[in-house]
Amino acid sequence: MIVCKFGGSSVASTAQLKKVKDIILSDENRQIVIVSAPGKCFKDDVKVTDLLYECNSIVQKNLSCREVFKKVAERYVEIAKGFKLDVKELNAVLDGVRFNIDAGRGTDYTASRGEYLSAYLFSQVLGWSFLDTADVIIINPDGTVAPESYDLIKRAIIPGKKYVIPGFYGATSNGQVKTFSRGGSDITGAIFARALGATLYENWTDVSGIYAADPRLISNARVIPELTYKQVRELSDVGASVFHEEAIAPIYERQIPIQIKNTNQPEDKGTLIVPETSSKDLIGVSGKTGFSALRVSKLMLFKKYGARHAMLTMMHIFGVRPSYSLYGIDSIVWYFESKMASISVAKAMCDRLKKEFELDEVTVVPDQAVVGLVGDMTSTSYIDAAVALRKANIDINSINYGASEVTTLFFINDKDLNPAINAIYEACF
Amino acid sequence: MIVCKFGGSSVASTAQLKKVKDIILSDENRQIVIVSAPGKCFKDDVKVTDLLYECNSIVQKNLSCREVFKKVAERYVEIAKGFKLDVKELNAVLDGVRFNIDAGRGTDYTASRGEYLSAYLFSQVLGWSFLDTADVIIINPDGTVAPESYDLIKRAIIPGKKYVIPGFYGATSNGQVKTFSRGGSDITGAIFARALGATLYENWTDVSGIYAADPRLISNARVIPELTYKQVRELSDVGASVFHEEAIAPIYERQIPIQIKNTNQPEDKGTLIVPETSSKDLIGVSGKTGFSALRVSKLMLFKKYGARHAMLTMMHIFGVRPSYSLYGIDSIVWYFESKMASISVAKAMCDRLKKEFELDEVTVVPDQAVVGLVGDMTSTSYIDAAVALRKANIDINSINYGASEVTTLFFINDKDLNPAINAIYEACF
Repeated sequence: MIVCKFGGSSVASTAQLKKVKDIILSDENRQIVIVSAPGKCFKDDVKVTDLLYECNSIVQKNLSCREVFKKVAERYVEIAKGFKLDVKELNAVLDGVRFNIDAGRGTDYTASRGEYLSAYLFSQVLGWSFLDTADVIIINPDGTVAPESYDLIKRAIIPGKKYVIPGFYGATSNGQVKTFSRGGSDITGAIFARALGATLYENWTDVSGIYAADPRLISNARVIPELTYKQVRELSDVGASVFHEEAIAPIYERQIPIQIKNTNQPEDKGTLIVPETSSKDLIGVSGKTGFSALRVSKLMLFKKYGARHAMLTMMHIFGVRPSYSLYGIDSIVWYFESKMASISVAKAMCDRLKKEFELDEVTVVPDQAVVGLVGDMTSTSYIDAAVALRKANIDINSINYGASEVTTLFFINDKDLNPAINAIYEACF
Repeated sequence: MIVCKFGGSSVASTAQLKKVKDIILSDENRQIVIVSAPGKCFKDDVKVTDLLYECNSIVQKNLSCREVFKKVAERYVEIAKGFKLDVKELNAVLDGVRFNIDAGRGTDYTASRGEYLSAYLFSQVLGWSFLDTADVIIINPDGTVAPESYDLIKRAIIPGKKYVIPGFYGATSNGQVKTFSRGGSDITGAIFARALGATLYENWTDVSGIYAADPRLISNARVIPELTYKQVRELSDVGASVFHEEAIAPIYERQIPIQIKNTNQPEDKGTLIVPETSSKDLIGVSGKTGFSALRVSKLMLFKKYGARHAMLTMMHIFGVRPSYSLYGIDSIVWYFESKMASISVAKAMCDRLKKEFELDEVTVVPDQAVVGLVGDMTSTSYIDAAVALRKANIDINSINYGASEVTTLFFINDKDLNPAINAIYEACF
């Protein structure tokens, strides 16, 4: 049995949904379909979810979202008409949703209606059953999935029957609709794949797989044919986007493979994410900007046990939680997202750290970027990458090699990110 | 005013002490002299301190150390005779010391008598004053120097008067003799230099300075003319020995320069350790073996705040305190001294970590070595070093670059340490 998830662009219009329908019906193992909210139909179009967030803002000002919600409704009505469905029932459902939004059911309820309506409508198109995830996915206060969700799903799904299911949300333990982070339909698909013991989790999107480098940057970047859970997780962590990294956790233990496919070019091989691979290849390179480096040093810094933990605790008071860290003999560099601390907060944090821990030096260096080279790190390609960066006159501020079996991290200046990706791609791929 | 410290080989015999005397008298600014215990006079000779530890073992078995102590006494008597001193008083002092050792004054008292007698005797040779450091240096239970020591020293030293002072020990706050770690006479010198505001701290030894690489390995290794406190501290941390790293702390704040000189070749320029340098040069490369790598990984490892601290706490229960650490996206590698945990303890620790933190993987890899390349790290020589290691077919297990402004750390297999130092020295120096 295959669980397949279709992203926003795949369900944006009648034309797109016809492709989706063809894909689904071409393999009878595709029994569970998760859908996102309709995305953009054209470049300057607005995603349904963004319209819904707009509705939410209006309602929070104690006004009715009626006018904006009309645009939401139009999207679904148009699709229904495209499939020659009777729109009377749909209109009643739309009215009910609008009423609930106006009645103040809250941000998560409102934001999740794009998926809800998408799944409701597409279940009509296919003549399949609809299942509301608010009834079966319980989301903990920290955003993780409560384990009992898997049982609830198993009990709700009748074997042999086929379902269309909304992505992106579940409910709190007391039944209030609660969403995952944006792009969370990938997580919903993973939860169903795990709960139902799927043989494959298909993730249909608008690109032909995960690219070895951002194709906006490297025009001829190749699609990665196969990579591991770990590799996709670490590639995501350093900025590559295609598959939601939190969607790996639910199926990690069950080792269900994930197939990324392109709805618009279903004949393309796509990318297969597997538990283990024997490939010794490099997988990809990705990076992201927006970090600051907090550098501290003190003679015999680590003679005092617990010093680094105490410093981290202090940093958290200032709202700073580092994404990456390198520990030297008498010094540390922590990379954190610059948005976590304004210049004045960063300064106050430095002053406090310096005083409290009697540090010799504390500085915050803004405008840092991280680049991750992902693949089998027993190769020495990371050395080629370093040589290539030097040749391109790019300053390397830090290198972390060997902590991970799949990723080498390079830290550089923001402005050098694109040239760095280019240099590494050229040298290593 | 110059504080000068003479190491064990410099005070091992009459011949050596004559060189020391010439050095001291050639500059009247040399007013405070710290001495170690006599070292070896020839290759298979025994250091006085080792003889004293032997005395201590004997006394702990409730026997008299008389026979072994005779060998200690002979060393001093011989020196006294070499300087044509009356040995009657010396013999009385030696008898007193032996009596106290036999009376059970303890390990630290016993071990420190080499320096005590050395300073006593050499003060007679020079006709200078003797000052017992047990009266002026207070050592805290954790081995650090109590701040009041600096005042005690200032009050004990009469300006203009010249002193010979024993290295290596002080006393606890209730007056019991307590030693520093082995080689701790360097620390004593640093404490006096700081307390008295010396313009220079001279450290006289049997080599012509700090070498850029171990001269037993690189026969033509050059002497480092100048380096910073930080650089010498980090070079020491990765195995280079010449100057005791804990001796930097006392004079770090006062920024007193340290001159390493060779008693046997006083005309050699030696090595100058300074607070700051404008030099952009590489300084040296050093390494040490005997580490194990503890590798852990878990998907989304750091989503839970405090995970790494909790793991470190658990490791400490098993007696493991890592010397070096690298944190990846979902994985960590900690390098710890292998002697901290037997194979069975390491296994038990892995099992416990795996269970407690639900880790995906936990392994301990033995036989690891660290290599530090020290110098101004804004240069890119560390890339040349990596390339050289690859060319020499040496596997690099981890690289930590950028955490420190002065050191890049390479982690390799034990067996590759010497070839690695060779390859790096050849490529970078």
